[in-house]
Formats: sequence, C-alpha cells, structure tokens
Amino acid sequence: MKEFTETDIERIGELIDSQNQEAAQQEVAELHAADIAELFQSLNLRQAEWLFNLIEDKEKKADVLMELDEDDRKKLLEGMDPEQIGHFIDLLDTDDAVDLIQELDEEDRDEVIQHIDDVEQAGDIVDLLQYDEDTAGGLMGTEMIVVNENLSMPDCLREMRRQAEELDDIYYVYVVDDDNRLRGVLPLKKMITHPSVSKIKHVMEELPVSVRTDSPIDEVAIDFEKYDLVAMPVIDSIGRLVGQITVDDVMDEVREQSERDYQLASGISSDVDASDSVFAQTKARIPWLLIGIIGGIVNSIILGGFEAQIAAVTALAIFIPLIGGTGGNVGVQASAIVVQGLANGRLDIKNAVGQIGRESLVAIMNAVVISTVVFLYIFFTQPTGVKYTVSFAVAASLFAVVIFATVFGTFVPLTLERLKINPALATGPFIQITNDVVGLLIYVGMSTWMLSIFG
Amino acid sequence: MKEFTETDIERIGELIDSQNQEAAQQEVAELHAADIAELFQSLNLRQAEWLFNLIEDKEKKADVLMELDEDDRKKLLEGMDPEQIGHFIDLLDTDDAVDLIQELDEEDRDEVIQHIDDVEQAGDIVDLLQYDEDTAGGLMGTEMIVVNENLSMPDCLREMRRQAEELDDIYYVYVVDDDNRLRGVLPLKKMITHPSVSKIKHVMEELPVSVRTDSPIDEVAIDFEKYDLVAMPVIDSIGRLVGQITVDDVMDEVREQSERDYQLASGISSDVDASDSVFAQTKARIPWLLIGIIGGIVNSIILGGFEAQIAAVTALAIFIPLIGGTGGNVGVQASAIVVQGLANGRLDIKNAVGQIGRESLVAIMNAVVISTVVFLYIFFTQPTGVKYTVSFAVAASLFAVVIFATVFGTFVPLTLERLKINPALATGPFIQITNDVVGLLIYVGMSTWMLSIFG
Repeated sequence: MKEFTETDIERIGELIDSQNQEAAQQEVAELHAADIAELFQSLNLRQAEWLFNLIEDKEKKADVLMELDEDDRKKLLEGMDPEQIGHFIDLLDTDDAVDLIQELDEEDRDEVIQHIDDVEQAGDIVDLLQYDEDTAGGLMGTEMIVVNENLSMPDCLREMRRQAEELDDIYYVYVVDDDNRLRGVLPLKKMITHPSVSKIKHVMEELPVSVRTDSPIDEVAIDFEKYDLVAMPVIDSIGRLVGQITVDDVMDEVREQSERDYQLASGISSDVDASDSVFAQTKARIPWLLIGIIGGIVNSIILGGFEAQIAAVTALAIFIPLIGGTGGNVGVQASAIVVQGLANGRLDIKNAVGQIGRESLVAIMNAVVISTVVFLYIFFTQPTGVKYTVSFAVAASLFAVVIFATVFGTFVPLTLERLKINPALATGPFIQITNDVVGLLIYVGMSTWMLSIFG
Repeated sequence: MKEFTETDIERIGELIDSQNQEAAQQEVAELHAADIAELFQSLNLRQAEWLFNLIEDKEKKADVLMELDEDDRKKLLEGMDPEQIGHFIDLLDTDDAVDLIQELDEEDRDEVIQHIDDVEQAGDIVDLLQYDEDTAGGLMGTEMIVVNENLSMPDCLREMRRQAEELDDIYYVYVVDDDNRLRGVLPLKKMITHPSVSKIKHVMEELPVSVRTDSPIDEVAIDFEKYDLVAMPVIDSIGRLVGQITVDDVMDEVREQSERDYQLASGISSDVDASDSVFAQTKARIPWLLIGIIGGIVNSIILGGFEAQIAAVTALAIFIPLIGGTGGNVGVQASAIVVQGLANGRLDIKNAVGQIGRESLVAIMNAVVISTVVFLYIFFTQPTGVKYTVSFAVAASLFAVVIFATVFGTFVPLTLERLKINPALATGPFIQITNDVVGLLIYVGMSTWMLSIFG
C-alpha cells in the first residue's frame, strides 16, 4: 500500500539527523505499524532506535516490534533491559509474545517473563511456551471469544462485548460446554439473523474443523487452504478448547515453508534474503558449493580412470558434460514434483510405490525422446570411424541416466519424508551432484563396453 | 481433517458399483464439500459422476464442483449441458463463477451465461469477466456487506441483516458515502462495543487498506501479508467500492505462485502435479530437457575445438565437469535470491544496482574459497609435469566462472522483472545451461593461455 520513495526516506533521514522530534513524530503518527517497520529497513540502527522511541502509542510500538524482521528486532531489543521488554510483551497477543520470547537468549527469558505485569497473560505465555514450535500449539494464541452453549443470543452478545475489549480482531465466536469442550462455532451471520434465539447451541455450527495441539503446522496449513478458514480452534487431547490459530500466521507459514523449500532446492542452506549481509549470504551458500566441488573432484577421479578410452577415441570426451547435465536436470524435475506434492498434500507417502511406478513411465518416455535425438545428432556429425562407438555409448548412457535419475529423484525425497526429514533437502544440489557422478560412471562403463564391440 | 483410509475408499467404491443409492447418499451427506472433492480423486470419472448426482443439496454440489482440481472439474462439466452449468453458476459466489466460466471453451461461455437465472448475478459476472485474471479485479467477488456512513448502528445492523441473507461469510462491513465511494470499514468489535452510536462514520476505521481493480495480484498478496488482512476492499479509479478480495483466494494465489516459481526453477514448464497423467508430465518436462541437450551439444562443439589442448595435457579433460557444475550451482543460488526477494516484496527493482554490487562481493568471497580449495587439491595430487598448468587453469577458471555466474544469475531475473516477464523463468535450467556453456568457454580459453605459459 504505502510505498516510500527515495525522497521520503531522505526527508525522514534528515529529520532524524537534525533531531527534529516534532516533525519526525508527525511523520510516523499516521503510518501503520507495518509501514514503520518497512521504513526502518532503510534506516541505520541508531536512526531506527531514535524514531522508535518517539512513537507515543505503546501498542503501536509493540506492533512495530513484531512487524520487523527477526534480525532487526533482535538489534532493537539488544538496547532494552528485561523490564522494558516485559512491558512490550504485556501489550502483545500471546502468540506473538511467545515468538518474541523464543527469540531471546535462554538466560534472559525467565527475567523477561518476571516483568510481565498481567499475571493472566504471563500464565498463558508460560503455558504456550511448552508447545513445540512446529505444532498447532506453538502457533496458536489464547485471544478469542468463548461462550457457553446454553447462553441465549442476547446474553451471548453481552458476554462477547465483555470479552471483546481485550481483543484486536474477532474471527469466530467459539461455543463450549460446561467442561470447556469445544462444541461449535457461531458465525457472525447467525448472530445477525437470529438475534433472539434462546440457546445459541440451537443455531451454532456443530463439529467445526479443529486441530489438536500436537498437529504439525503443515497439516494445519493444508486444512486452512482446504476449508477456506480464517481461524481454527485448537483443542487438547480431551477436546477442551485451548487456543486459536489465525489465517495471517498460517499464511506466513505457507510463505516461509515454500521459500525454505525453494531455497533448499537452489542450494541455499539457511534462510537468507536479498538484504542480508554479504557474510550471511556467503555462509548460507558456500556449503553446497563445496559439496558440489567434492562432486566435481569425484568426477575427475572417475575420469582419471577413463584416460585410456579417451586416448583411443577422443570424441568420447566431448560428450561428458551432456551426460552429467541431463542426469541432474531430470533428477531435479522428479524430486520437485515429489516435494511439492508432499507440501500441498496432494501426494501421500502411502502412494510411494505408485509414484515411483508412474515416474518410471515418464522416465521411459523422456529417455526415448532424448536418446533418439542425441543418437541421430552424433551419428550424422561424427566421422565414420568412431560414429558407432560414440553414438551408441552416449545414447545408451543417456537412456540409463534418465531412468536412474528419475527414479532416484523420486525415491530420495519419499524416503526422507518417511524418515521425517524435510524432503526438500534432497532436491537441487544433492540430487544434481549424485546424478552427475552416477551418470559419469554409467558413461565410463558404457563407453568401455562399446569400445570392446566397435573398437 | 478428514482422512480417507484405503478401507473407506474401498467401501464407498463398492457402494457405488452395487448402485446402493441410499447408503452412498448417507456416506456423502455428512461430508464437507472439500472432503467430497478429495474423495473424487480416488474414484474414476463414472463413479464420481454417479456420486455427484446423488448429492441432494444443490449448494453443496456447486461447492464440490469448485473444490475440485481444474482438470477434474472440466471432466465433470463435460457431461453437463449449458443449462445445468448455468444453474450451478447461480449458486456460486461471483468470483468462483467467473473462474468457472473462464475455464469453459470460448464458444460455450455466452450460452452458459444466458442460463443464469438471477439477472443481478449474471450482470455482476459479466462485469467481472472484463478484468484481467492477474489483477485485483480478476480475483474479487461482489458478495459483501456495504452500508452508508450516515446510518445509525441499529439501522446498520438492520441493513446488515438484510444483506447477510445472501452471503456465506461476513468478513468486514464496508462503509461508503452517498456516491458509493469507500470511506471506511466497521470492525465487528465496534459493532459490539458501540451498539447505539448515531452515525457509524463516527466509529468506523477510516482510510482502510484498499486496492484498485488494476493492481497486480502479487502486490495484493504482499499487502494481505503485510497488514494481516482477512479481506480487502477493491475500488475503481474514482474510489468507488466495486468488490472484495478474501484471504482464502489470496492464500491459494500465494501457494500457486510459489509452486509455479519452484517448478520453473526445477525446469518444469507448465503446472503439473504428482497425480497428473504420464503424458502431461512428459509434456511439461521434456522442453527444458531438450534445451539442456542443446546446451550439452554446444558444449561438445566447444570441446571439439579443445582436442589439441587435451591431447597435450590429458589431465585438463578430467576437470571439465567441475567447471560447468560450479557455474550452474552458483548461478542458481544467485537467481533464487533475486526471484524470492521480488516475490515477497523485500527486494525492489529500483535497487538492482545495489543488489548486483552486493552479489559481486558474495561472489568474490565464494570464488576465493572455492578456487583456493581446488587449487591446493590439484597442486598436490597432479604429477609435477602438469601441475602448474592444470592447477592454475582450473583455479583461475573457477574464479572467473563464480563471478560471472553470480552476476549473470542476479542480472537476468532483474532484467526479466523489468521487462514484466516472470523472473522465475530465469532460474534453474536456463541459468544452469548458460553458465555451463560460458564456464566451458572460460576454461578452454584459460587452459590455452596457461599451456602457453607453462607448456
């Protein structure tokens, strides 16, 4: 929505550097917290701190803090003492509060929690901290409207009014029984269209989609997408309502998960983005590059044993890059299909055998096309003396490499998923390097065999 | 939520095959439309059609239709005449209706639209069909609650009650002036906490985040994430409220966009998933493989001109895969960072020069590490006679390739973005193949030069 131009940033920078408090305050007063956080990205730490301290509305300050990138938030928090941080946490929703506490150093956490004034808030946070970050419990907050199923609609509205004071947004109204077990949800529409019903359980929607606290986050995301939800109630093992997950957090998760998968597929080993420091970038990128180098060295060793064949038919050497490259490309395609199917829930690990079968057919079709094209090219371009050896060796190797690389690219992510390791780890460099090496081995073997036939 | 086991599917399949209408009807009666759509994936077309026709609730039938994959929906629609399709469209939300009509063949569209009974619905759909699919106008629906700013809260609630009858969900209440220009939104919380205010404009939130009909979808998605929205009003060029975009559609867009980017990066040229036919899979995957083959053939031609140097020092041949592979890996990393930064809005095309500068520094660091490691390895493993030539040729080439591939991998997606072409097209195979070829050219040149120095 709000876009800062170069001039905007220059102007604000000048206001800060000239310590013009009043004008700077006015500048940020009208901005949304998310926009202020975006503005901070264009400022240095000292400027951002100065501007942050000028924000008068404490709620807004807390919101700005949560809208920042984790790295930037950390820097701002480093300038604060535990008491100040505790006061901010008082103002945050519990799910954000838990995220913030988890970003703190282990030894600071307890002290910060001691400084949360609102005991109820502190209690909720301590409870939430026990859930694994990657589960529904770790994503939920405790801010929500909960009413008893036996209330009448007017009483329900009165109860909602009371509870709403502490909330920013209302998504659904959850209906529970006397033991706090989730019984239904009350859509806003029903409240408007049945203003005087005697018991809300008569108009609530029963059996709402819910998750247990220990459900993994990716399953939660799939349910949100499948059922088009804006919020989802979280229940404990005996069905009691313990929290709510909202769609904005799920959308962040979906974005983060696909970014992580994409980065892994591109050989980037930790979460970085374009604005991170050169050092962070290098650190995230060099590991896979070095693994690639090891693959290249293994290739050089394999080729070292191939010198006699190359000496006999030098034309064999010139098709080396073709073999490895094709194996890599084929393998990456196959693994991307699996990783994506597992991420969006359309591929079930129970169908592993079926998937490998289907991929084998795809592999055969690709292999036939590729081998034929390459065979014809080599056969009609190489000199008569070596054309049989080279064309058969290259085409047969390509056929074998395409089949192997496809099945391997399908099998590895499925196996990782079964071992509960992120299958995206397998795509990109790992598959590429392995297929490169295996492809070369196949080629060396095939060439030696063809030489023994055609000489 | 609902998971179908093998036994479930077998049982339902048997009910269908034995034409047991009553039991089958009971089976689907309790299922959510999204679950029925999921069940259809495990059935054949004939079975799915039979079960679909058994669903009594017409609204639910329409919902099932929209929950299906585009391919499956197409198959079901093929068995219906335009009149039936028109009746379903009557029951859909306008944004879904437009999606469905756009999936029909051009010549069927008009006839289907003629069969929409509700004239207002038909009019809205015809209006919506004029917007580009990739803009806010193409994503919005017209179902929403709109009230005049001068209403009192009790009148507003009465008006909402009237409008709510035709809606499934209520996200926000939009407040407009007498000319239908958007003035604010009324959060549910305000309705509850200010039940008797005389004019809602006194309690509405002014200046809500909104988009124009022609805003690109990816900008809409970034705003939803930034401001944590569940719905967003869409306005025309003079500020009149024309529609609403809901978070479920945006989440689908985010998922689809990142899947598309990931697939493109993996060399898959059209949208396929694990369950698509072998033919569809092959068709989506063979184009980039063939382009890879062309790259490999270009490499073989380059290497053909390198035979004299290989004959002089055969050890030069064995490091060929290392050079191309590294260039490919480095380029893919750099382009992934750019593509992702552009997709999530953290990288602005205005910062292109800065990004290339930063990447150049990353490239130099990576290049120093990689070249040093490889130089030392070759220097201490190759025989004395050739170790200078080979180690200097390989290390210097790697250095140059890493720099070139990084800058090229950064530059190409930035350029595509500027030309308004999806930058994800540039990642994966294209960058890889180009860098492979360029890497080899650098290596051939460098080797020839080193041979002239060290012999």
